[in-house]
Amino acid sequence: MKKIINDPTDVVTESLAGFGAAHSDIVRVVDDPLYVVRVDAPVAGKVGLVSGGGSGHEPLHAGYVGAGMLDAAVPGAMFTSPTPDPIVAATRAVDSGAGVLHIVKNYTGDVLNFEMAAELAGAEGTRVTTVVVDDDVAVQDSTWTAGRRGVGGTVLLEKIVGAAAERGDDLDAVTALASKVNAQVRSMGLALSACTVPHAGEPSFVLGDDEIELGVGIHGEPGRERRKIAKADVLVGLLLDPIVADLPFSSGDRVLLFVNGMGGTPLSELYLAYNTARNSLQDKGITVERSLVGNYITALEMQGMSLTVLKLDDEMIELWDAPVRTAALRKGV
Amino acid sequence: MKKIINDPTDVVTESLAGFGAAHSDIVRVVDDPLYVVRVDAPVAGKVGLVSGGGSGHEPLHAGYVGAGMLDAAVPGAMFTSPTPDPIVAATRAVDSGAGVLHIVKNYTGDVLNFEMAAELAGAEGTRVTTVVVDDDVAVQDSTWTAGRRGVGGTVLLEKIVGAAAERGDDLDAVTALASKVNAQVRSMGLALSACTVPHAGEPSFVLGDDEIELGVGIHGEPGRERRKIAKADVLVGLLLDPIVADLPFSSGDRVLLFVNGMGGTPLSELYLAYNTARNSLQDKGITVERSLVGNYITALEMQGMSLTVLKLDDEMIELWDAPVRTAALRKGV
Repeated sequence: MKKIINDPTDVVTESLAGFGAAHSDIVRVVDDPLYVVRVDAPVAGKVGLVSGGGSGHEPLHAGYVGAGMLDAAVPGAMFTSPTPDPIVAATRAVDSGAGVLHIVKNYTGDVLNFEMAAELAGAEGTRVTTVVVDDDVAVQDSTWTAGRRGVGGTVLLEKIVGAAAERGDDLDAVTALASKVNAQVRSMGLALSACTVPHAGEPSFVLGDDEIELGVGIHGEPGRERRKIAKADVLVGLLLDPIVADLPFSSGDRVLLFVNGMGGTPLSELYLAYNTARNSLQDKGITVERSLVGNYITALEMQGMSLTVLKLDDEMIELWDAPVRTAALRKGV
Repeated sequence: MKKIINDPTDVVTESLAGFGAAHSDIVRVVDDPLYVVRVDAPVAGKVGLVSGGGSGHEPLHAGYVGAGMLDAAVPGAMFTSPTPDPIVAATRAVDSGAGVLHIVKNYTGDVLNFEMAAELAGAEGTRVTTVVVDDDVAVQDSTWTAGRRGVGGTVLLEKIVGAAAERGDDLDAVTALASKVNAQVRSMGLALSACTVPHAGEPSFVLGDDEIELGVGIHGEPGRERRKIAKADVLVGLLLDPIVADLPFSSGDRVLLFVNGMGGTPLSELYLAYNTARNSLQDKGITVERSLVGNYITALEMQGMSLTVLKLDDEMIELWDAPVRTAALRKGV
């Protein structure tokens, strides 16, 4: 294992210390229990948005804390759910009295720990609602999931719902919008290589020299099948066809197309895949109105990509275009 | 070789087609000869900024085309300098009459081709000046370079000088500022793994399971030595000590600290390295006033990082903070 780390057990805290120092104008990193929060939290009258989950998917979620997106992120250990304790603390820190939405990716540990935290925060008097993101069409159940996994759709949901909370929508409206975004987004990914969790010390799985894992999860969970690598145009079709068929997306739809790198893929390959995916959607009469290309929800140094397609309407476009000021996504401010 | 590509010879054009489509509000990709230009070029009365070089270092340079940074970028084939022809075309496209600055990384091919392009553009009546960036302290001469290589400092220079051009500084002032930034910036990198150029089909070099290349170039050029991997704190020192000693940076200096990923390194490791580097500088009495952490000048999927330190003054801070609207760097607009 070759990594730029000190002791494997200190990776998350040392990394977050750097993150907090680099972005002290945007976030504050609270140590015990560990969470990342907007410098200006709680924002008076605003619904608080809290997400979190295992580390190793950076910039998710800490990179999305800031004006126009999340109020707090709760990072667990690498690929490990945070416990209820820091989730409660983060929830408390962002509650201005307008209530808090928990944005939870559908992994069993995350769902249980956020559920318990919501109960505890509720007992303290904070109104908490929850959206569970489950946009991955690859498999029905998976290593750490009952039902579909939450992947790339989470990033889009955090941006759009974050903009709604920022403009002052109330908790019911913000929660309803979160459910709507989750209902209209679909994703699927593939891996060209595995990744190594620092404290494990060796790759989570092994692929042959010409193999890919189709439908891989963001922790390297198995997908639909292991198959031979093919040209990018073929790979894009293997991801896009199940996505389009699932919602289904159809002619006349307006969408956001998100091509995400798993952490170790060159940007040039992601834009190449975007080009194919975009042309393929347009050929089906589906209009790509907005785009996102880059490493936004990763699996450490894994090589691979995921595609995410979100069906848009005018309101969602307006919210997507709204100003945002976070470490990893910024425009207008 | 596992990559998300079609024919290796089409990677650059297919990728740029996707880039142009994803960012059509910011850039236009011109096909023959190939260059990337601001949608609103030429901007009346503004000095034009043109950079370029071999592809494979994305988001450099096309990702930095837009308001507040470059007016055009000229991408060559993978790790191969662009010829004079597209450089001349890009120079012509951004010349509003106020002249054009060429920002050239110090590689022999780039220097020669930009020199020839400057002469040709000059013969057409465009006033062209040039800054050659050579911030890499690792080695004096290298595989493709006489003198020091141009690396991470290029990104910072493009941002700061881009802001000066945007506010209306004339060609002499912009050129002088570019020279000043180059004089005050130093960098050094290391590789944990090699990268594979698509048309080559195999890695440019091979490292043992526990080896790093210290002082590596952004094309995988050899550095100072091949040595054993060590803890992050040690690795950071191996890069930072030569950087600090070279300018030299000293107590009382205010700096921008840039921790750059080579393409395949998890963001968590870059922030961890940033934390160590920042603490180390502060211990020396050097104040980190501004920061940049992420994959900004890469070598395809190479794992590794580079550190860049730039000595700041009030004017440079103001220019660094100025609004910018490009695909890869954005704030305030």
